[in-house]
Amino acid sequence: MNGAESLVRTLVASGIDTCFANPGTSEMHFVAALDSVEGIRCVLGLFEGVVTGAADGYARVTGRPAATLLHLGPGLANGLANLHNARRASSPVVNIVGDHATYHAQYDPPLASDVAGFARPVSAWVEASLSPLTVAADAARAVQAARAAPGQIATLILPADTAWLDAEGAAPCLPVNGPSAVSGDAVARVANALGRGGKTAILMRGDALRFAGLEQAGRIADATGTRLLCDTFAPVLERGDGVVPVERIPYFAEQIVEFLGDLDAIVLVGAKPPTAFFAYPGKPSWCLPPQCEVLNLAQPHEGGVAALAALADAVGAPASAQSRTTLLLPELPPAGAKFNAHTIGQVIGHFLPEGAIISDDGATSSGPTMAASHAGRRHLHMPLTGGSIGQGLPLALGAAIAAPEAKVVCITGDGSGMYTPQALWSMAREKCDVTTVVFANRSYRILNVELGRVGVENPGERAKDMLSLRNPDIGWAALARSMGVEASEAHSITEFTEQFAKAMATPGPRLIEAIIG
Amino acid sequence: MNGAESLVRTLVASGIDTCFANPGTSEMHFVAALDSVEGIRCVLGLFEGVVTGAADGYARVTGRPAATLLHLGPGLANGLANLHNARRASSPVVNIVGDHATYHAQYDPPLASDVAGFARPVSAWVEASLSPLTVAADAARAVQAARAAPGQIATLILPADTAWLDAEGAAPCLPVNGPSAVSGDAVARVANALGRGGKTAILMRGDALRFAGLEQAGRIADATGTRLLCDTFAPVLERGDGVVPVERIPYFAEQIVEFLGDLDAIVLVGAKPPTAFFAYPGKPSWCLPPQCEVLNLAQPHEGGVAALAALADAVGAPASAQSRTTLLLPELPPAGAKFNAHTIGQVIGHFLPEGAIISDDGATSSGPTMAASHAGRRHLHMPLTGGSIGQGLPLALGAAIAAPEAKVVCITGDGSGMYTPQALWSMAREKCDVTTVVFANRSYRILNVELGRVGVENPGERAKDMLSLRNPDIGWAALARSMGVEASEAHSITEFTEQFAKAMATPGPRLIEAIIG
Repeated sequence: MNGAESLVRTLVASGIDTCFANPGTSEMHFVAALDSVEGIRCVLGLFEGVVTGAADGYARVTGRPAATLLHLGPGLANGLANLHNARRASSPVVNIVGDHATYHAQYDPPLASDVAGFARPVSAWVEASLSPLTVAADAARAVQAARAAPGQIATLILPADTAWLDAEGAAPCLPVNGPSAVSGDAVARVANALGRGGKTAILMRGDALRFAGLEQAGRIADATGTRLLCDTFAPVLERGDGVVPVERIPYFAEQIVEFLGDLDAIVLVGAKPPTAFFAYPGKPSWCLPPQCEVLNLAQPHEGGVAALAALADAVGAPASAQSRTTLLLPELPPAGAKFNAHTIGQVIGHFLPEGAIISDDGATSSGPTMAASHAGRRHLHMPLTGGSIGQGLPLALGAAIAAPEAKVVCITGDGSGMYTPQALWSMAREKCDVTTVVFANRSYRILNVELGRVGVENPGERAKDMLSLRNPDIGWAALARSMGVEASEAHSITEFTEQFAKAMATPGPRLIEAIIG
Repeated sequence: MNGAESLVRTLVASGIDTCFANPGTSEMHFVAALDSVEGIRCVLGLFEGVVTGAADGYARVTGRPAATLLHLGPGLANGLANLHNARRASSPVVNIVGDHATYHAQYDPPLASDVAGFARPVSAWVEASLSPLTVAADAARAVQAARAAPGQIATLILPADTAWLDAEGAAPCLPVNGPSAVSGDAVARVANALGRGGKTAILMRGDALRFAGLEQAGRIADATGTRLLCDTFAPVLERGDGVVPVERIPYFAEQIVEFLGDLDAIVLVGAKPPTAFFAYPGKPSWCLPPQCEVLNLAQPHEGGVAALAALADAVGAPASAQSRTTLLLPELPPAGAKFNAHTIGQVIGHFLPEGAIISDDGATSSGPTMAASHAGRRHLHMPLTGGSIGQGLPLALGAAIAAPEAKVVCITGDGSGMYTPQALWSMAREKCDVTTVVFANRSYRILNVELGRVGVENPGERAKDMLSLRNPDIGWAALARSMGVEASEAHSITEFTEQFAKAMATPGPRLIEAIIG
């Protein structure tokens, strides 16, 4: 058994069943090992941002890490933006990055680079194997690091000779540092604060925003009247019919200030205090009102769901949540209605099936869909977490691999989609059940908003040209078909309604270009 | 004048006339400044790998840096792979990376990251402006650093508030550390070695491989019989009719060993000793024979052309080179000839016009084109320098912006092209005179070769699947058209000949998908 095979066997033993890959020469032994080891599915991406974004999607759906297989420093570099997003999602990911043979690096060949340097800004754990005899143990530790609560990025650098030389065998799975328990003091302190009256809110992130966590939060809200909040870009949120509802913090600083302006106390469950996404001249960065007390119930590495349950008991809440979302599907827009993000949102909200997963990289276009699907059938929402657009398509790919039974709906802008369009090819290859809706407004629409907000009042032609995606228009349907994905263009809400309804009723990858620009 | 305007004015004063950009909110003041400052052309890329690869292409053609404009850490991250290639090309590049306002970073908002950490592995110079009052001076130093011989990557991090707050004004251009002179001792030592007889070679890189440098090298070869060599992936090489010919070192280690096996001495001019690109089990990394003496005539930061001229004089060479390439265009393949990389290369070599620039990211497919164009019309060849595929299309974009009078021919594989297809959109928008030929062999062909070379003898289905670009086939012509580039599919050498001849006779962006897989 060589080092590569000991590595793959160790990954399988540690619970890794999926590897998103874009391999090169230095990873050929890993690739070859896939033939002799059962238990790991390898999904090819044509660009590394697809690979890492898919691993994030897989992790958000399953709570478990996938592996990535990347080709030396530049291969990792191409995946860094979506690893940044994954880090902001606290998604567990295990990166395996091939490198030159240990004795070859001294010659500084063209592909040599500071792989660990590339890895550090996104990785909680970075190590390089120096011997085929340690590869298995290193891999077990990498998985352990990735799975440490709340989820981390671990990067293992694998010099080619440690992959091809003889190894001793696989390493067993190591114990995982799951979420730790919060102290009774923390629970009592928060219970006391909620009991004082005044305006309060609980801001949650992580598992607390899945069904079971929201049940506990709902009990607390029922008993105390506290508001339940999530971040603008909470990595996952379960919502819709039968789920305890949560208010999402708005995007812009002045909106946040107004939204939270009357709070006397905010309780954090795996979240940080709300701040502005960007700073703007004359606008606040810190968005809580001066009188607002900040209380930590659970840090990100602590068990938010258990903490909420303990808090619910401490405040004498009823055994189960009473206030739940009741199914209320949006009406379909009438024939002849305007074709825009609002009417598109109504259609998506109307047809979105039970158990769907929304991968949301829609920027300015996704708000209306979020509003319209609020009381729709129960689904999971996964937005862009780190602000690095180009996450939506890869995230949808990973979600579809993780949950083949679910319908995945990818909402993307035309600007964001163009960062990682190669994900469409992997969707076609893997026959993923993903319906992508491209909001083709032919611009970086958000930047037109931001240009005014940062104080530029009369932009000239050269500035406006930098925000326009016209000249030429991108033909998204044609682009999708070129990569094997069935696609259509919608020029009206009637066409969109027909196409989206059909997409929800038919499994497999497809793309709808909603031409609203 | 705010910091952004002081920055743009300083860039212009320092000789920067082109900015490849993918801006976001934190760069809006820079974008706005473009309206009020004359003298800088801004080219939008839809993905940052396009932006940085284009800056590399611009630099290789002009010898001067372009600026890039990138959006925080993840925007820079997306551009790192082609910055790696640019670093390996010693291309001067000035990256301007927007970041959060200085006072905003403390809140760790979603887009915050270790920007300098991302920059360091590719940058010779990294600084962050901390005040609007220093932005102009910082930018002047960044350009100075980029232009230091032989060309470096300089990254200036620009917090948003240093862009929007008041500045004092632009800063003047700083003096540039151009190539330094080699010592007379170095010249005498090499002249002596060449005079001893035995088998010798001069391995060149950088300006030495442009026409004027090759003239000097040709004088030396005429006088001493020494061989003239360039690296497999020399960043630029002028070649064809009337140019002193150079032998290119082959790719695989065992080929290099044979190619150089009889050398008694090798003289380096801006180059490093030849080594294998990758290590392989049982194959050498160091490729020079044991008896071969290594002599440095000029380090990369030293003036290679002047050093060659001094050496030519020292060995008593004639005043001008005698051995030049004589025009010998390859015959066109006969009707009914096989359609493969060899016949395609003949067609390209036949029609390639005077002054053309070849951007070569063709991997296994480009060798025959190189062979066929060897004695073609005079042209500039620019290959992938750092091994990170996905450089060809962006490099062609940048070359076309730098040299609008030249026909740019981009040779790319279907694997490599899929890393940065967004470059096609910028070519369409800027009406670049680029003809792209995609060698659509439907596979990572090089990896099929490498799999055997690393010792995997009977790959199974799972391994082979990771190297295949089939299922689905990528429709390159359709993909190009979706981004506004005129495109055609060639299924035979007859079709290809007709399409390529027409492309060479017609200005503007177009793509030919040569379906050879």
